[in-house]
Parts: sequence; structure tokens; C-alpha cells
Amino acid sequence: MVAPWQDTTLPAPVRAADLLARMTDEEKTAQLTSVWIGAEPEGSGALDVAPGQHTYAARSAALDALLPHGLGHLTRPFGTVPTDPAEGVARLAGLQRSIRAGNRFALPALAHEECLTGFTAWQATVFPTPLAWGATFDPQLITEMAQAIGASMRAVGVHQGLAPVLDVVRDPRWGRTEESIGEDPYLVATIGTAYVRGLESAGIVATLKHFAGYSASRAARNHAPASLGPRELGDVILPPFEMAVRDGGARAVMPAYNDVDGLPAHAHTALLTHLLRDQWQFTGTVVSDYYGVSLLEEAHRVADGERHAAQLALAAGVDVELPAARCFSPADPPAGDLLDRAALRVLTQKCELGLLDPDWEPVTGAAPVDLNPPHMRELARKVAEESVVLLANDSALLPLSDTRRIALLGPLADEQTAMLGCYTFPRHVGVHHPDLPTGVEVATLAEALRAEFPDAEFVDDPAAADVCLAVVGDRSGLFGRGSSGEGCDAEDLRLPYGQGALLDEALACSTPVIIVVLSGRPYALGRWADRAAAVVQAFFPGQEGGGAVAGVLSGRVDPSGRLPVGVPRNPGGQPAPYLAPPLGRHGFPSTVDPTPLYPFGHGLSYTTFDWGQPQCDAAEFATDGETVVRLTVRNTGARPGTDVVQLYLHDPLGTVARPEVRLVGYARVTLDPGASAEVHATFPADLAAYTGADGRRVVEPGALELRLAASSEHVHHTVPLTLTGPVREVGYGRRMRCETRVK
Amino acid sequence: MVAPWQDTTLPAPVRAADLLARMTDEEKTAQLTSVWIGAEPEGSGALDVAPGQHTYAARSAALDALLPHGLGHLTRPFGTVPTDPAEGVARLAGLQRSIRAGNRFALPALAHEECLTGFTAWQATVFPTPLAWGATFDPQLITEMAQAIGASMRAVGVHQGLAPVLDVVRDPRWGRTEESIGEDPYLVATIGTAYVRGLESAGIVATLKHFAGYSASRAARNHAPASLGPRELGDVILPPFEMAVRDGGARAVMPAYNDVDGLPAHAHTALLTHLLRDQWQFTGTVVSDYYGVSLLEEAHRVADGERHAAQLALAAGVDVELPAARCFSPADPPAGDLLDRAALRVLTQKCELGLLDPDWEPVTGAAPVDLNPPHMRELARKVAEESVVLLANDSALLPLSDTRRIALLGPLADEQTAMLGCYTFPRHVGVHHPDLPTGVEVATLAEALRAEFPDAEFVDDPAAADVCLAVVGDRSGLFGRGSSGEGCDAEDLRLPYGQGALLDEALACSTPVIIVVLSGRPYALGRWADRAAAVVQAFFPGQEGGGAVAGVLSGRVDPSGRLPVGVPRNPGGQPAPYLAPPLGRHGFPSTVDPTPLYPFGHGLSYTTFDWGQPQCDAAEFATDGETVVRLTVRNTGARPGTDVVQLYLHDPLGTVARPEVRLVGYARVTLDPGASAEVHATFPADLAAYTGADGRRVVEPGALELRLAASSEHVHHTVPLTLTGPVREVGYGRRMRCETRVK
Repeated sequence: MVAPWQDTTLPAPVRAADLLARMTDEEKTAQLTSVWIGAEPEGSGALDVAPGQHTYAARSAALDALLPHGLGHLTRPFGTVPTDPAEGVARLAGLQRSIRAGNRFALPALAHEECLTGFTAWQATVFPTPLAWGATFDPQLITEMAQAIGASMRAVGVHQGLAPVLDVVRDPRWGRTEESIGEDPYLVATIGTAYVRGLESAGIVATLKHFAGYSASRAARNHAPASLGPRELGDVILPPFEMAVRDGGARAVMPAYNDVDGLPAHAHTALLTHLLRDQWQFTGTVVSDYYGVSLLEEAHRVADGERHAAQLALAAGVDVELPAARCFSPADPPAGDLLDRAALRVLTQKCELGLLDPDWEPVTGAAPVDLNPPHMRELARKVAEESVVLLANDSALLPLSDTRRIALLGPLADEQTAMLGCYTFPRHVGVHHPDLPTGVEVATLAEALRAEFPDAEFVDDPAAADVCLAVVGDRSGLFGRGSSGEGCDAEDLRLPYGQGALLDEALACSTPVIIVVLSGRPYALGRWADRAAAVVQAFFPGQEGGGAVAGVLSGRVDPSGRLPVGVPRNPGGQPAPYLAPPLGRHGFPSTVDPTPLYPFGHGLSYTTFDWGQPQCDAAEFATDGETVVRLTVRNTGARPGTDVVQLYLHDPLGTVARPEVRLVGYARVTLDPGASAEVHATFPADLAAYTGADGRRVVEPGALELRLAASSEHVHHTVPLTLTGPVREVGYGRRMRCETRVK
Repeated sequence: MVAPWQDTTLPAPVRAADLLARMTDEEKTAQLTSVWIGAEPEGSGALDVAPGQHTYAARSAALDALLPHGLGHLTRPFGTVPTDPAEGVARLAGLQRSIRAGNRFALPALAHEECLTGFTAWQATVFPTPLAWGATFDPQLITEMAQAIGASMRAVGVHQGLAPVLDVVRDPRWGRTEESIGEDPYLVATIGTAYVRGLESAGIVATLKHFAGYSASRAARNHAPASLGPRELGDVILPPFEMAVRDGGARAVMPAYNDVDGLPAHAHTALLTHLLRDQWQFTGTVVSDYYGVSLLEEAHRVADGERHAAQLALAAGVDVELPAARCFSPADPPAGDLLDRAALRVLTQKCELGLLDPDWEPVTGAAPVDLNPPHMRELARKVAEESVVLLANDSALLPLSDTRRIALLGPLADEQTAMLGCYTFPRHVGVHHPDLPTGVEVATLAEALRAEFPDAEFVDDPAAADVCLAVVGDRSGLFGRGSSGEGCDAEDLRLPYGQGALLDEALACSTPVIIVVLSGRPYALGRWADRAAAVVQAFFPGQEGGGAVAGVLSGRVDPSGRLPVGVPRNPGGQPAPYLAPPLGRHGFPSTVDPTPLYPFGHGLSYTTFDWGQPQCDAAEFATDGETVVRLTVRNTGARPGTDVVQLYLHDPLGTVARPEVRLVGYARVTLDPGASAEVHATFPADLAAYTGADGRRVVEPGALELRLAASSEHVHHTVPLTLTGPVREVGYGRRMRCETRVK
């Protein structure tokens, strides 16, 4: 006879509850823990992919000690040390068999991996970094990419991916800017939710991180406290998480490392329980960030010992301790309802994933495993191409057609590193194994250019060239191993490695200079931009990035990326997000002018577009209604190209000071020469909601302006709107949504 | 028969209420307004001492229009254009007679002036800037200074002074850092309250500004929004205001320009009424910052027109619109209780000042007016001398005794500007009148050095000198007219005007270099400090500053200043206040290390001190109790000198992440060679209060550490303490107090 928890016809919560009732406290606790195979306690830490990995491992419960009680999670079976995919599948399957054999319910563990720029595994496709996803303004493409990533993870036995990062960029000095999608909550929300949909549709649990306020850390220093009030938190930081939970169906959330106004996220009940579960109706699991529970004791000093840390985290709403069991211990299980609550969530998720099914078997991978198949390379290429931003082309030097002699300058011009974000396998793990092949083909920009311009001569001397390509930017890495990436924060937005001198030199000669920035964050370009013939920006565009940038330079690819973060004029004066009320956007009465060199949303094309007069279904509508704005866009140039219609909301009067404009919709429009299309934007009044003086999130009657723009600063048309009816409280119960579609 | 409001035997509130009952709404409203004589609406604004002064004047109610209803305030009768003090007295008296003649109650106006670095009037003593007051760690001296300033203002008919600035420095890029006292709330509270006591004891209404959160503006840009949660606001920003209201008896408060988490201070009822009046029992007046009410409409966009702005401000708790009547208009008076509430406060204050007395007469100044008498010059000298901080003297080159040839480098070495803060009359007003004499004698450092070293030869060539003094720092000014001061914010903490090159050059030759910094903010010195023989820091030390710095260099003055703000190593990476929990103080896991070059509280002497073992009356005491710690300090050197014993609190466990250490007491100890003194520090448990996870301000039982230290980083002794008994809620009802005295 089959026990109810094994009965696949019953709903997952019912099965999980039945199993829970059969478990001892030790077994329940074991479900809240993880083991990090490969993170050996011996050694110097030279192979650590996370700081303190080996010392932490020495303090964590070992697999053998946990096995008799079971095991909740398995940490990074593919992303810890280089692993041949087929061997990894076999090893993971073996491990799962041991785990099942060790506990009386024969439960396997839930295996999680990183997948920020694709599956972080050797030989897996390396996609562009999330900041590049933001630059595409193309949620549909990001969904396709995530679906492919998820399918490849599922094919090797992984269940959960620790992505996406939904932190809204607040200060690009932060090293994790490259891991973020942009500085606008609506862009982050829509692109991030698109990623979640893709990953979840492949059956992989998406993990929203870092909940919440991590990107607002003081001076952009990693882990530093964030100074945020409830309105900024509610209107800027939280919306992407809300959308990804409600509309994306994400099944896991990871709290932030840092504290917000003194409250560490891992002990923040109002955030992890009242908001996330009670208001947003989230039913998945909350998994700690690596060592996040320990930090409650050892850094935040709100816990008096590891058991107290576990108790605080459990009470707040953390269900699983990652990467391994230190505070959560089956040897000393927490008592009572909190343990049951967390264990039930984990078991329910395992049930949904099939891990409670009697016929569950680990993936064994009889066939060869290809983590970088043609359709994924094609997706990587497409995302890369759509993400390249043409910032300036005043003299129309680009695209380069008849160029014969090209000078290519800069140490990054011939480095694979310049293409790869900090969570790519080569930069994350491979960097510790210098003899290991990259695992995927990554053309440097130099290599891609030679392929793109087969007839051109590449010279070293700019004076002898028709055009000079000056390539500057970042090397990604973790914790000091690069100029961008986790733990690689910057004191200012000066180009790293003294590359400003390279631009000074290049611009000193008479050959036209094209500045190409391959980076993980925006850098101040004000010193050179006026003298450059053109400026091209790509954010770690991945394994196909070289071809994408080369294609934009040659004109094979029409540039269609738009800036997900503003590019500043000067290196200092940060933070200066574009989301700011009037007193935060101007110089006077300050000598420091935060106006960016290239604003959020900016990006050029090689063709030209005409925007017709917008049509509005109803200029007046109720505070619980919506309206539709239509705009016809026509390609008036001689080349095919893509425009990105951006909708910004300006609200002239409220009970609190608010951003002058914020993004509320956008649509990519790809058109052949002479062709036109209608953008159809549904704008619900909900999108005008903000957190008012009394702390309620409301939509108020009154005048609004919808600005149809080519960037946050370049407005083509202003559509006056009027909301009517009563003030309506929205709370976090309504979705932030502006549908834009092209007919 | 005398009306009750004229009866000087009745209490002020009774008299004011009687007068209020006799007034029309127009007359009440007129009491809430001001006129800025001398701020002419004509012209280009070239003479403006505040931005937009002339255009605003054109939009404000004129004196003639207001006179029939009366007039609340008079704005800056001495500090707008250069005014001979005696003529100013006569003119002000004449103005008061016109005002009295104009209204049926014969009420004069309340005249206010700036007094940040002394009375901002021509020929008045120019004291050191508030950052220098902080460096003295000498509240008693600051009280004496403020009393003298107040007496001179009172002698010319002024009633209210727009000081002190109680903003806690959060990011020294802010131009108004020089106007602030320091980066620690306890230091700002005690020094600021000392100033308030002095000013109020002279009969001048002290004005606490800017309430609250102005110094936390984004990227330190003037007027930009501040991101602050309730805990940081409560534990860092508000305490100085609380102490100055409760213990200092300040009778006026000025709201901040900017918004905190969306809430502009001028419309912030919870701040201006619930906290300030209901909890702190403040009974004085709230006067707007200049144009602050208008900004509700024109910048914050929370008001729909000027009358709406007035209504919001009145409702929040603003009583008087400064500098002139634009939103508050007797021609269209606000209706109801709010008008009465504000007018009653103004009338009560006027009554306290004697302005309602039947025999009130304006000051007429029969005798010559001396605003810079010997006793004030002596106080200015003493504050300046106590404020000079010796940062480094590794090779004991200082004091300079037998030096014969001195090279003096740097454009500021022979500039008066380097001594004068942005609110001194010469920099604030005189700068618009270049032909006007300074009004007081201000020796440049070069002049002071020639007087201090009469036998020395001053050479230009460092190679030919025994020692090289490299003088770097700021020129103060307002709104772009300098490198420090209101509106003169910095993008980073690089020395301005390219003065870093001067230090590079000076240090390239073999002559020992002493770096002298004369500035309004700390600057990054990490590039040069290791190679300099000594480093001396003074913060705009006022008219006697040259002699003070020269005296420290010669050894005539033992340096006794201590840093009120840390001096950073590198120009970027701001903000990095020393008040931070562990994750905010270290580099790892960030590549940016915020550790300062010289920490808060640091400063050296020419003599040496021995600190005995501290004695503690009771290591355990109740959460509503107190203990006494005694420490004997002995001068073990051969010269008289001053040490500053600093007490820092470290609390190892709490419900929220909190600063690793914070200042809770200090005592200056001046000793002859061989002499000793006992520091007696009373430490009440109240000082361990903090705002916890549930938002309550509490003292909790448990372990504490009191660190007796020579700076925030240099701890001599740690005294373990244990608080016993229940968690006690302190709210804002208890005072922050640690008495330290020397026996």
C-alpha cells in the first residue's frame, strides 16, 4: 500500500504534510540543510569560488553525519570545480542514490546551481551578463534564453537556479552592477520576470535575489549597510520582486546579505513573511544566501551564537541554510512550529519537483551531454547582438564599410575576459584552474573583427590607420580578481587599469577614434566623448559577444540596445540614479551636476524613425481604469533597424517628492526601410501608484503626463492624462503592468 | 488702563493669547512673515547672498504692503550688504519705529541674523568654523564664544541667530561640512548644545538647523533627497536636536530643505509637531529655511500653488516664512486654528523678548559699536588654537625650534581666504564688494609665520630650506564661489585646485615637508602622508587662525585638537562614516576599504601622557541606573599639554545591526609636566539606548564595553559593563548624557 505522501494523485501540500507528520525533528531539520560537495575544508582557499568557502566547510555538518536524517539541498554539483558534464551527471546520480539510501523515506536532495549568465558549468553556453539583458529591452528573447538555460540544467539533474538578480542598480560603483538588469524598477521587473518565466517553464526553480536592498549598500561597498526608508524600498527596490513572484511564478527567494536601516534581511520578518508571503502570496522556499545565517551572528551581531542565528532566521522566514549546515543542525534541531513550517515548504517544493514520487530516479545521462548546442549559441548571439548600444555616432563614421586599415588598441581588445561576466564558469571557477580549456569558444574582439573585416589590414599604429578602435573596459572576477564582479567594487567610475591614458593617447592623433567599452558597469566618458567619432557600449556580451560588437561596427547588425543604466560624465559624484525628484537631478544649488553624459534608455540606430502623433483612447479615466495609447513608428531610413519606444510617467503633484520621470512601458519595433508599425500601449492607472506621505500605496486622481520618448531625456511626445474618481489604495495587491505590443 | 497683553507681570503665553484675541487674521498672518530689507528685486543678482534672492524678492510682499498689519520678522539687517555697525544700529532702530508706527498694537519686528562663525556683520569678530569647534572637544569654551557672539548681536538690536548647524556629517563631499560640527552625534550634540546655551544666555534666540537629514543628501549634493530609515534618523541624525532642545533650551528650529525618503521637512508633521513639540516639548518657533516653503511647490511638487504650500507648512508646524512673505500672505490669510497656533507662538516669543512691553525701545547705540573687542579676539584665538589638529609627526620634526630657513609653498599660504568659513562676513557678503576692507584683521599663514619666526628666513626654493611647509586646502565661498561652503559640493575628496601636484613636487625633493591643510572638509591624504615629516590640519580657523597654526608649528601652542571627522586615505569611496556596523567598516568582501587614514578623534600632542588603570564604581548596574568610571591621566613628557580622553561604547549584541563603536563621552585634560588629573565619567545606561527592530528606543540588559581611547581606533582600556534588569523603553523622553569632568 502506498502512503499518502507517495500518492501522486494527491496535491503536493497534502503529500508533504503527510510526510512531515512521519518525520522526527532531526529529519525535518535535515531537509533545511545542504551539503557542498567539493568545497573541501582542507587547503588555502585558493580554489574557493565563494569567500571563506573552505573555512566555512570545516565548520559545517559533513555529508555522512547528515545522511541518516536525509538532506534538503545539494550545493553546486557542477559549479564548484571543473566537471565534465557527463561525469557530473553520473556523479550527481551516484550522490543522489547514496542520499536516498541513507534516509528511511528514500528522499533525494534538491540540487541547486548558479545560472546568472547561463548554467555555470564547464562547457555550458556563456550568455551575456544581466546588464546586457536589460539593454535588449526584449523580455520575449530573455524568456527564450532562460527556457533554454533551464532545459540544459534539468537535463543534468539540477532542480534550482540561483538567478535572477533583481536588485535595482542604485550606485554603479557596486561590483555586482553587471549582475543586475538596470537602474529602473520597471525594466528590472519586466526583464527579470521574463527570465523567471523562462526558467520556471523549463521546470527549474528560479531564485529571486537579493531580497531586498542589497544594491543600495553604502558607497556601493559589497555587504555594507543600506540607508533606505520605506518609500524608496517600496517604490524602487521591491517592485521587481513583486512582479516576479506574482506574474513570474518564482518558487524561491534569497535574502540579501546586508542590513537595511539596521535590519538584516535574513532576520527580517516583515520582509520575508508579512510582505512576501502574507501580501504577495508567495508559497515557495526562502533559501539563505551563502553564510547569510551565520552573518547574523558574526557580522550583524543580532544573534548570540549559531543556534540563535538559526532561530532568528527561521522565525523571520528563512527555510533553508546555504551553502551548508552550520546554524541549522539536525544534531540540535529547532523546536516547534517554525521547524514544521520551513520543512513543509521544502517538502512541498520537492513534491512539486517529483522528488517524493516512488518512481523518481536521478538523471543518468545515457546520451552525451551537450551544454552548448547550436540553438543555445544562436540565442547567446541574438541576446548579445540586441544588447550592444551605440552611444554616439555624430559623424556617421559607423558602420564601417570601406575601411581598409584598422588600428586596434587596448589590452582588452584581444582578451576573452572582456566578454565574460563574473558568474560565467571561466571567470567564476575556471580562473582557479588556469590549465583548463575555456570549455566554450569565445572569440576575442580582435578575432571577431578579423573575421568580420576579412579584407581589412590591422595595424598598430593609429597614424597609419583609417580608423582607430580604442577598446576599454573591465576584467570581470570575484573578490578582487577583476575590476567588476561580486566584491569588485569601485571607488569611482574612472576607467580601471589606467585605460583613460589609452584614450588620451588615441585621441591625440588625427585618425578618427571609435571608443568601444566592454564592461560590467558604466564608466565616466565625459573627458573623451566629444572628441570620439563614435562610442559603442557592450556589457559583458558573452561567448558570442565579439561577433555581436564586430557586427555592429561593420553594420551587419543594426545596433538596437538601449542603456539600462546612465553613463556618467565624471567619475565622482556617485550615486546619481536617474530616478530622482527635481532636487536630485540638477546641479544648482550644488556645484556637482549629476546629469549623465548618456541617459538611461539612450541608444542609436543606423537608420532613422518617424514617430507619428500618439492617439489616446481616453485622456480621462478612473483611478481603477486604464487607457490605450497608440503610436505609429516608421523606418524612414535606407536600412532595416529597430527602435525602442519608451513610455515614461511624470506626475506633477503628490503627497511626497517623487522621481521626475520613471519608465512604465516600452516596445521594440523592428522595421524594414519604409515599413511602419503601430505600438499599442495599455496603461493601467495602477502604474501611477506610489507610496504616499501616510505610507499607503495609492493611485490618486489628478493630472499625469505620459512621455513617449527615445530615452529618459529625449521626449518625442507628451500625452496629458487625467485620473478621475477617488484615491484608491493599491497596496502590494495589484500588479505593475504596462503592456506594449506592436501590430 | 493697561491691556493684559501689555501687563509685564503676566506670563508670556497669557499676554500673547490676549493679544492674539484682539488681532484680525491679516494681522496674525503678518506676524508669520518677514521682510528682507536690502534684498532688492532689481539687478542681476550679483550681490545676492542667497541664490535667487533678487528674483524671490520681486515675488515677495513689500514692506509698505505689510506695515498696516504689522510684521513678524526682519531678515538680515546687518548681513545683506556691508553696513557700518553704528549706522546699522541707527537704521534698524528707524525701521523698527516705522514698523511700530504702522500697526495698531505698535509691535516691532523680531530681527534675525546669521551667526555661524560669529555675528555675520561687517567688522565683527570672525571665529573658527563649526568643524573647528568640533575639533576642540571643549564645550565650555564654545559656550563662552557663543555668549560673546550673542552679546554683540543683542547690543545692536538683533534678536535671533540662525545657528547652530546640528547636521551630523554623513558624507564630507557636502559643501556644508565646514558648517557642521562633526560626524559623531554625541560630539555634535554636546558642542552644539554648548553653543546654544551660550547664545541663549545672552538673550539671543538660537535656531537649530537643519531639521532633519540634510547632511545625508544623495552623494552629498546640496538639496538632494536623503535616503534614511527611521533607525538611522533616530539614532544618528536626531540626537543633537533633542539635546539642544531639552538641555540647551533653544527657542527656534529651522527645517531642512531636502526630503527624507520623499518627505520634505517643511511639510513633515511627524517631525515638526509630533516629535519636536509633542515628545520633546519644544515651545519655541519653527522658522522656514529661506524659500523652504516655496520649494514645497516649486521643487518638491507636493503643493499646488503658493497658498497650498503655506497651508502644508503651517499644518506641519512651520510658523514663520523666511526670508520674506511669498506663500504666507496677509492679503489672503490662512484660515482657522493653524493660523492661531503659529501666531501665538510668534507672539509668545516676542513677549519673552520684551517686544510686547509698553516701554520697549529699539537699541539706538549712542556709544560707538565695537563688534571685535579684545575679549572676543581673545576667544577667537583660543578656539582657533584648541582646534588645530596635529595628525602626524613621526620624526618629531615639530615643533620647529631652531629652524632658520623655511620654504613656504602653496597658493593658500598667503591668502586670508584660507582662514575664513563660508558664513564669515568677508566670504559671505564682502566677496560681492571687492573694494570693501575686510573689516577685521586676518593674518594669512605667511604673515603669522613671519611674526612667529622672526629670525627665520623664508625662501622659495625648498631645496635651499631646512624645512618645507606645503599649505593646501580650500577657498570657502557660496554656490560655486569656492571649493567649500554652501552649494560647493565635491565629486570626491581630492584636494581642489590641483593642489595634489604641489605636494607631489614638494615631496620630490629631500627637504622634510610639513603638510598644512587649511580646509572646510577632510581631504584624502593617503598619497602623501607616509612621505611627509608631519601633517597639520586646521578647519577654517578664523581671524586668529594664522597665529594659531603658526603657534602650533613653533611649539608656542601645544596641539590639542582632535578630528571631528575622519581623514580618508583615498579620494573616492564616499560616504564612509566611522559610525558603521562591522560590514560597513571593513574592506572585505569589497575591494573598497573605507578605513580612514586618520580616524575620528585622532590628534597628537607634543608631550606624552600615561593613562592609569580605569576604576569603575559598579561594573553591573540597572538599565535605569548609571556608573562612574575614573581614569588618572599623567603628563609624562617635558612640556605642558592637553590630552582628550574619549569614551566609546561597543555593544556586542542587539536586535539590529549597529555601529561598532560610538562616542559617549570625552574630557579635555590639560596638564603641566609631571602633573596628573582624574577624569570622572558618569555613564548613564540611557546612553546605551538604540532604536530596535520594533522601532522602540530601548536600553537592554546585557554586556557592554566602554572603550577608553585616544581616538575611535586607538583604544587604551576596555571596561566591561553589564546592564541588569528589564528592557527599558527610553523613547525620546530621556537625555543623552555622559558627564566627564576633571578633578
